[in-house]
Amino acid sequence: MFTFKVLKNDESTNARLGEINTAHGVVETPAFMPVATHATVKSMTSEEIEDMGFRILIANAYHLYLRPGHKTIEKMGGLHKFMSWDHTITTDSGGYQVLSLSQTRKIKSDGVVFRSHLDGSEHYFTPKKCIEIQESLGVEIMMCLDECPPYPSTKEYMEKSIKLTTNWAKLCRESKTRTDNALFGIVQGGVYQELRKKSAQELMEIGFEGYALGGLGIGEDPENTYDAIEGTLQFLPLHKPRYLMGLGKPEDIVIAVSMGVDIFDCVIPTRNARNGTLFTSDGKLVIKNAQFAEDERPIDEGCECYTCRTFSRAYLRHLYLAKETLVLRLLTLHNLYYYSQLMKEIRDSIRHGNFPNLLSRVKSIGGY
Amino acid sequence: MFTFKVLKNDESTNARLGEINTAHGVVETPAFMPVATHATVKSMTSEEIEDMGFRILIANAYHLYLRPGHKTIEKMGGLHKFMSWDHTITTDSGGYQVLSLSQTRKIKSDGVVFRSHLDGSEHYFTPKKCIEIQESLGVEIMMCLDECPPYPSTKEYMEKSIKLTTNWAKLCRESKTRTDNALFGIVQGGVYQELRKKSAQELMEIGFEGYALGGLGIGEDPENTYDAIEGTLQFLPLHKPRYLMGLGKPEDIVIAVSMGVDIFDCVIPTRNARNGTLFTSDGKLVIKNAQFAEDERPIDEGCECYTCRTFSRAYLRHLYLAKETLVLRLLTLHNLYYYSQLMKEIRDSIRHGNFPNLLSRVKSIGGY
Repeated sequence: MFTFKVLKNDESTNARLGEINTAHGVVETPAFMPVATHATVKSMTSEEIEDMGFRILIANAYHLYLRPGHKTIEKMGGLHKFMSWDHTITTDSGGYQVLSLSQTRKIKSDGVVFRSHLDGSEHYFTPKKCIEIQESLGVEIMMCLDECPPYPSTKEYMEKSIKLTTNWAKLCRESKTRTDNALFGIVQGGVYQELRKKSAQELMEIGFEGYALGGLGIGEDPENTYDAIEGTLQFLPLHKPRYLMGLGKPEDIVIAVSMGVDIFDCVIPTRNARNGTLFTSDGKLVIKNAQFAEDERPIDEGCECYTCRTFSRAYLRHLYLAKETLVLRLLTLHNLYYYSQLMKEIRDSIRHGNFPNLLSRVKSIGGY
Repeated sequence: MFTFKVLKNDESTNARLGEINTAHGVVETPAFMPVATHATVKSMTSEEIEDMGFRILIANAYHLYLRPGHKTIEKMGGLHKFMSWDHTITTDSGGYQVLSLSQTRKIKSDGVVFRSHLDGSEHYFTPKKCIEIQESLGVEIMMCLDECPPYPSTKEYMEKSIKLTTNWAKLCRESKTRTDNALFGIVQGGVYQELRKKSAQELMEIGFEGYALGGLGIGEDPENTYDAIEGTLQFLPLHKPRYLMGLGKPEDIVIAVSMGVDIFDCVIPTRNARNGTLFTSDGKLVIKNAQFAEDERPIDEGCECYTCRTFSRAYLRHLYLAKETLVLRLLTLHNLYYYSQLMKEIRDSIRHGNFPNLLSRVKSIGGY
């Protein structure tokens, strides 16, 4: 079971309030998916992610295939049970990781041969294999195997690449055996508008339960990113969810929502937390800075997360400088709470017709 | 305010049930103090420590003096507020760390000159300074500055060392300005029974609110350790709490309790957790072992900690091999829960007159 419906369209932007229904419950959109690459949002328990209000997260098929193995997870009752998460799960196919992490890899028309970044063992990833892995894991949203060419890539290379991605998407579609979940196609094409259009149209001909925007935020100018997002969205069906892959500073999120994106994932809140960079209502805060050595205030005085209700900047800075792992949890919790609140505010503002105000407020903070 | 009373003496051993009262509440004894060296029990929040049932923990004056500085903590409202722990705190003086961690150090009759292990800066630790630091932190139980000679040490060296420790203890006692907390003397003397007796008697002449057994578990034979504990305890007053420093495998704890020890601290539950070694009712379990790769059971089927209620051995092994920091939390939580239950069982068994049964049961598990 997988359904999506738009509950309300914003009047002055393309933002929309929606709802995804899966076998693991309801996901209100626009939604942010915390990144749980290895079946854990780094340093957090699934319970904490749930308590913050998240109802969807994203794991990675490539990583879980290599370790502990999708068959192991299947035997343990599937990914939900394995990581104790009773809500919706998306898995990225791992196409991006196959190409970025593996030491040697060879792209063929029917898949990729690569060596594991963990132990050098050789593997053959095909569209069929990729679906088999994701079906074993038992997730609600599967992603097609795609090629994400680096930026910059020539138009010629990108054209060939789109052809490959379309072909793989078709094979993924044909390999899908489960009927209780969704498969999303991934639109590529870099910053070449006509290629993104072509990619979108080819995928729509195959037909997917949702469409993702891939290959963005990898080095191109932000203006080109936004143009590419807007340019792609206009060709995608309105009644299907749109997922912007891997991009998600607060400003990116509100702008992409205003263009009509429904789903996001990004390592920024969790990775920044581990680097001591925090999101606040006044902009970013770098916890190691000397100015916080004797600062009794919480990270953000308006924030109601456990970290802000409990600990001072001085204490967090101390933990950070002492390299105490507790700080990873506390800062990650804060940043993800910030994101959960941001998404809630976005949904509420669309519901109540004041999304444009929120959009300009978040854009004016900037500075991340 | 600091009081201690013995509520019940075991009939067939020297074990005793007791109660410490401080400005931060009641501590039932025998008690185990989780180690919070840098003002955090590694990877745990104070709330989790409290939820497990602990009402006392131990921080380290030397480490907090160097970073973030005791004056900073005092300005932030004291150590309790700083780390959000509203129960009793002990601080180790840091004598042991001054001698073990600092790159260069020189012991003088009135203190120690040493270089910081963090930045090489030179510091002068005197008994007076040591008390000043602990009073700034605002803890309930302060420890005297002592010298903990390595094992083995000659009797001649040990005799000189005891003299120094007694002298420092006297200076600590004289430096104490607060009347709302306790100062414990530390009995040294290594495995030389007559020197431990001498050390104990000299400290008792000065007079302290409690007495600690130091310099044990540093390489000597376990038999010598137990002899030294028993040998020391017979000279200590029955109406004062006795604290065995740094030693605390489950077996050590029950044996020392049977000899009359009231308070323990040890890094074993937390450090072992970080190394993937877990305490269970059947003995130790090494989570990385291949045999757990597809084991759906919790670490310990009889355990009710969050980790055991929520996650399988297979999942924990996966996190451990993937070096995911979440596993540090989950395993530490389990091991500390094991200790909290052990201490509760010890107290209940003394209360109900069946401590000897518990003693033989824990001794029979062994194997840590």
